[in-house]
Amino acid sequence: MEKTVGVLGGGQLGRMLVEAANLLDIRVNFLDAAGSSAKQVSNHDGHVEGSFKDAESIRKLAAKSDVVTVEIEHVDTKILEEIADKVDVQPSWKTIRTIQDKYLQKEHLQKHGVATAQSLPLAEPTIAELEKASASLGLPLMLKSRREAYDGRGNFPVKSKDDFKAALEALGGNKDLYAEKWANFKIELAVMVVKTKDQVLSFPTVETIHENSICKLTYAPARGVSSAVNKKAQALARDAVGCFWGKGVFGVEMFLLEGDQLLINEIAPRPHNSGHYTIEACPVSQYEAHLRAILDLPLHAEDLQLREPSIMLNILGGDSPDSHLQFAREAIKQRRTKIHLYGKGAARKGRKMGHITVCAPTMSEAESIMQPMIDYVDKDKPKSTPSKAPQPQPLVAVVMGSDSDLPVLQPGLAILRKFNIPYTTRITSAHRTPSWMAEYASNASSTSIKCIIAAAGGAAHLPGMTAAYTPLPVIGVPVKPTIGDGTDSLLSICNMPKGVPVATVSVNNSINAALLAARILGASDMGVRQRVEQYMADSEAEVREKDRKLDDMGADSYAAKFLAKK
Amino acid sequence: MEKTVGVLGGGQLGRMLVEAANLLDIRVNFLDAAGSSAKQVSNHDGHVEGSFKDAESIRKLAAKSDVVTVEIEHVDTKILEEIADKVDVQPSWKTIRTIQDKYLQKEHLQKHGVATAQSLPLAEPTIAELEKASASLGLPLMLKSRREAYDGRGNFPVKSKDDFKAALEALGGNKDLYAEKWANFKIELAVMVVKTKDQVLSFPTVETIHENSICKLTYAPARGVSSAVNKKAQALARDAVGCFWGKGVFGVEMFLLEGDQLLINEIAPRPHNSGHYTIEACPVSQYEAHLRAILDLPLHAEDLQLREPSIMLNILGGDSPDSHLQFAREAIKQRRTKIHLYGKGAARKGRKMGHITVCAPTMSEAESIMQPMIDYVDKDKPKSTPSKAPQPQPLVAVVMGSDSDLPVLQPGLAILRKFNIPYTTRITSAHRTPSWMAEYASNASSTSIKCIIAAAGGAAHLPGMTAAYTPLPVIGVPVKPTIGDGTDSLLSICNMPKGVPVATVSVNNSINAALLAARILGASDMGVRQRVEQYMADSEAEVREKDRKLDDMGADSYAAKFLAKK
Repeated sequence: MEKTVGVLGGGQLGRMLVEAANLLDIRVNFLDAAGSSAKQVSNHDGHVEGSFKDAESIRKLAAKSDVVTVEIEHVDTKILEEIADKVDVQPSWKTIRTIQDKYLQKEHLQKHGVATAQSLPLAEPTIAELEKASASLGLPLMLKSRREAYDGRGNFPVKSKDDFKAALEALGGNKDLYAEKWANFKIELAVMVVKTKDQVLSFPTVETIHENSICKLTYAPARGVSSAVNKKAQALARDAVGCFWGKGVFGVEMFLLEGDQLLINEIAPRPHNSGHYTIEACPVSQYEAHLRAILDLPLHAEDLQLREPSIMLNILGGDSPDSHLQFAREAIKQRRTKIHLYGKGAARKGRKMGHITVCAPTMSEAESIMQPMIDYVDKDKPKSTPSKAPQPQPLVAVVMGSDSDLPVLQPGLAILRKFNIPYTTRITSAHRTPSWMAEYASNASSTSIKCIIAAAGGAAHLPGMTAAYTPLPVIGVPVKPTIGDGTDSLLSICNMPKGVPVATVSVNNSINAALLAARILGASDMGVRQRVEQYMADSEAEVREKDRKLDDMGADSYAAKFLAKK
Repeated sequence: MEKTVGVLGGGQLGRMLVEAANLLDIRVNFLDAAGSSAKQVSNHDGHVEGSFKDAESIRKLAAKSDVVTVEIEHVDTKILEEIADKVDVQPSWKTIRTIQDKYLQKEHLQKHGVATAQSLPLAEPTIAELEKASASLGLPLMLKSRREAYDGRGNFPVKSKDDFKAALEALGGNKDLYAEKWANFKIELAVMVVKTKDQVLSFPTVETIHENSICKLTYAPARGVSSAVNKKAQALARDAVGCFWGKGVFGVEMFLLEGDQLLINEIAPRPHNSGHYTIEACPVSQYEAHLRAILDLPLHAEDLQLREPSIMLNILGGDSPDSHLQFAREAIKQRRTKIHLYGKGAARKGRKMGHITVCAPTMSEAESIMQPMIDYVDKDKPKSTPSKAPQPQPLVAVVMGSDSDLPVLQPGLAILRKFNIPYTTRITSAHRTPSWMAEYASNASSTSIKCIIAAAGGAAHLPGMTAAYTPLPVIGVPVKPTIGDGTDSLLSICNMPKGVPVATVSVNNSINAALLAARILGASDMGVRQRVEQYMADSEAEVREKDRKLDDMGADSYAAKFLAKK
C-alpha cells in the first residue's frame, strides 16, 4: 500500500519479510537467484535475478525501488553509498559498513559508551600479533575474523599459547582478524530493537541457546532472568542501536555475566534468528516492524510485547536431503506447534531449513510441548552435549516462616500436584530473615510466579509483609500455634490495613489456599479452570455417594461402618 | 512438504490458504486468472490460467494436483465428479453439490435431524407458488435463490402479500427459488468446523454482525452468550458438518433465537469470512486446519481454541478506488491491529478488499481498540443503522446480600474504576434469593467475569455459597453488623470447609478486596499489574511524604495541622 521496497538477498529472512509485506499489500523486489526462498512467495515481475554482491544488479534493484534494505549485512557498502543519492537506503550504508566489520562495530560501541568485550585488531595474522593481543587481553581469548563471519564460522577460541598456531591456521585465509577478551557468561541473551524515524523501541529480552555456535533455541521471555535484568538488557540494546544511523530492526546479541553485568556480543542490522518468535508471539512481528520502520508507518511500543511465552527451535539440515521434512512431520504431531519451512529444497548438514515456534499460556507448558521435539533433534547426539534440561517454571511460590509450618502445608502441596501446577517451596521468615524475605517477595513478580501462598502462626507477619513487597496476589494460611486455637494467627493475617490485601483462609487450611491459587490461575488459564471444575464435580459426587449410603444403611450402621475407621 | 493441492478459485480465501501452505512448504496450484489475489503470493509454474467454471481448465488443474479443493462452492460439480476418479476431491463433490443448492442443503440437514429453518421449494417463480409457500410457512418469510447466492444477493424478505410481486421481480431471473420460514433471531452466530479423516472438530462460537447482508464484524468468543450456548452451537455445527461427505473446513452460520434455541442458517464447504480471526487468535488457523484435514496431517482440538479474545472487521470497498488503502492507513495507527489487504487493486463499492483483526487480553480491551475503526467505517452512515454499541464486558462481579452493604463496597468500587477494571454490581442474597444467587454464581464463569467480590454481614453466607457454585476466585468482604464488631462476619466468611475457598479480607475493607481483585487479574494481565505496582509506589510516596513532614514539624504541630482535620 506504500512505497516499493528493494531487498538485497532473498533467503528465509526475506521470505518472512515479504510474508508480512503481502498482508499490507506492500510491493517487495528481491535481488537474488531465481526461485530463491523469498521469491517463492512473491509473484510479480519486479524482482531482479542475480547476486546481491553484484554492483550492476544492485543498481537495477535500486532503479525500481523507493527504499532499499538488506537481509544480510555482507554486502558491498560502496554500491549502497553510491545508490543512496537516488534511493532511500535503510538502515544507512554507514551503519552496515560499521557493523559488517566486527572490530569497527565494537570500536564504535565502545566510543559511544556501550558495554562490549574489549577488542584489539591484529595488524597481520601472525603469532607475534597474537602474543601482543594476549598480553593485553589475557588468555583465554577469542580470535575472530573481522568480516563475513556468522553462525560460528570465523571464530576460534584460544585457550592458551599452544592454540596460537591452530587458530591462525583455521582463520588464516583471512587477513583481517581481531582478538576479543574472553567473556565468562552465565547465559546468552538477545533483544530485537526497532529504530524508527523518531524512536528506538525494543522487543522483550530472550534467552538464546547455541550449539556448535549456531542458534538452536530461543526462549521469550528469558528464563530465570529477573524483570530488572530483562529491562536492563533492553535498555542496553536500545542504547547500542541508538548510536547507529538510519531505520529498521536490529538483532542485538549479548552476554549475561556473573553479577548480572551485560556485554554486547554482536549486532545484526536486519531481522534476526533470535526474533523469529515474534511472528506468533507479538502483535507485530520483527518483519512487520522492519517494514513499518523503514516506511515511516506508525508503530506502538505495546505491539512489541509478548502475547504469550514462546519458544523457537531451529530446523537444521541433517544427514539426508529430506531430514527437515522428516522432522516437520514429527513436529506437527505436537499441539500448539507452528512450523515454518523455508522452501530451500534439499537439506545440507547444519543449514537453516526452517524453524518451529510454540506459544503457550505459560513457559512451563511451552517447555513441555517443545521437549519431544528437542529430544528428536538430540536423538543421535552423545549425552555429553545436552541442551539445558528444561525445569518446569513454578507458577505458585509457597513460603513459610519456619520449617515447622511445612506439615500444615503438605495437604495443599498435594492439591497443587494434583492440579499439575508447578510450585516452589521456600523458607522466608519475616522476623529472622527480614532482608531475604523482602528480597524474595520483591523479585517474585519478575519470575514465572503468579501467586504466593504464605503460612504463618502467632504474630503471623509473613503473609502481610510478603504482600507489602509484591504486586502479586498473596494467600495467607494461619497456622495454629502451640498455645491457642489459631484465631490470633487468622486475625493477624486478615486484618491488614487498607492498601495491602492478603487473601486469608481458615486456620491450617492449606487445601483451601491451594484451591484458591488454582482458582486465581484459572481466572485466565482455561486448562487450570477445567481442573477446578472437575475437582468440584468429583467432590460433589463423593458427598452424594455418602448421602446415598447413609440413606441406604441408616445412621447407626453407617456410623459403625464408616465413622469408626476415623 | 506433502502432496500438491489444486484449488478452484484464487481470491482472498485462496490467498490466505496459500499463506498457510507456504509455511509448511506445501505446493498449491490455483485455477484462476493470472495475477489473482492468491497467485500474487505463490510464485511457481504450476498454476492454471483460466476460469474455475471452465471444464477443460479444471481437468488441467486435476492433472497436476494430488488433492483438489475449492475456495468457492459455485463450481460445476459434474466436472468434480468426473475428475474424482483420478484425483482426491475434498470435500466430496457430493457435499459441494448438496450445499451449493441451498434448498437441497436444508433438506439434507433436516433429513439428518439438524435444526434449520423450515423451507419449501417453489416449483416455478409465480405468485401462486408464493401463495402456497406462505400458507404453509406463514408471513413474513424469506424468498431465496437456491443457487449462486451470497453476501445477501439472492435473498428477499417478504413481509406481506404486497411484497410478492417485488420479490419475484427482484429474484425473477432465477427459476430456482425457495421460501424459508422467518427466523426471529436475537443474534447471529458462526462456528468453523474441521472434518478430518476420523474426527469432527470445531473452533469457538463467534458472534457475527451483518450490515446490508454482508458480514461486517465477528467477535470471538460471542459476547453475552453463555458457555453452555457456546458449546451447544459448536455441537450443532459439528452435527451439521458431520452429515456431509469428505474432509476440510466448513463455515456454519446460525441464528440464536429467544430461549437460546439454535437454527442453522447456512453452511459453506470451505474457509469462511467468519473464521478469518483464527489466523491470529488460534494456534492453528482455519486455513492451516483445512490443509491438515485434506492432507491427513495431525490436528489437535486444543489448536482450535482461542489464545486471546479477538474481533475482525471487514474492509469493504468505498466510493474511491483507494478507499481501502485510506482505511488501512487509519487502522495502522491503532495498537494491536493486524491488517490483511487482499491485493485486489482498485476498490469496488462493497467488495471485500481486506480485513483487520485485533486480539487483546480481554474482549473489553479489544473493543476499545476496534471502536475508532468502526467509527471510521461508519462515519458517513446515517445514525439509524448503528452497529451494536460495544459495552465494556465486566471482569469483576461485585455481589452483595442486601443494598445496605453497598456503602461499605463503594470505596472498593472507586478502586476498580481507578484501575480501569470494568465491573458489575448485583444483589444476590443467599437467604432471600437462594435460587437467583445460585443461578448467578453458576453462570459467572461462562461470561467475561474472572473474579467475584462478595460482601456479607452477620451469618455472612453469600461469599461461601457463591464460591460453592463457581470455579472463579471469590473474595469475601465481612460487613460489620449493627451489633458486634464484625468478627462474627469475618469468621463466618473465612472458616470455609476444606474444598471450597474464600479469600477473606478484614471487616468493611472493600478497598483491599478491590486491590486483591486487581492483583488476581494482574497475575496474567501485565497492564493491570503495572497499575497495581503504580498504586503501591504512590502509596509508598504518600507515606514517605508524611514521614518527612512529621520529621520537619515535630509530632505536636503535625497532629494539630493534619490530624485535626479528620
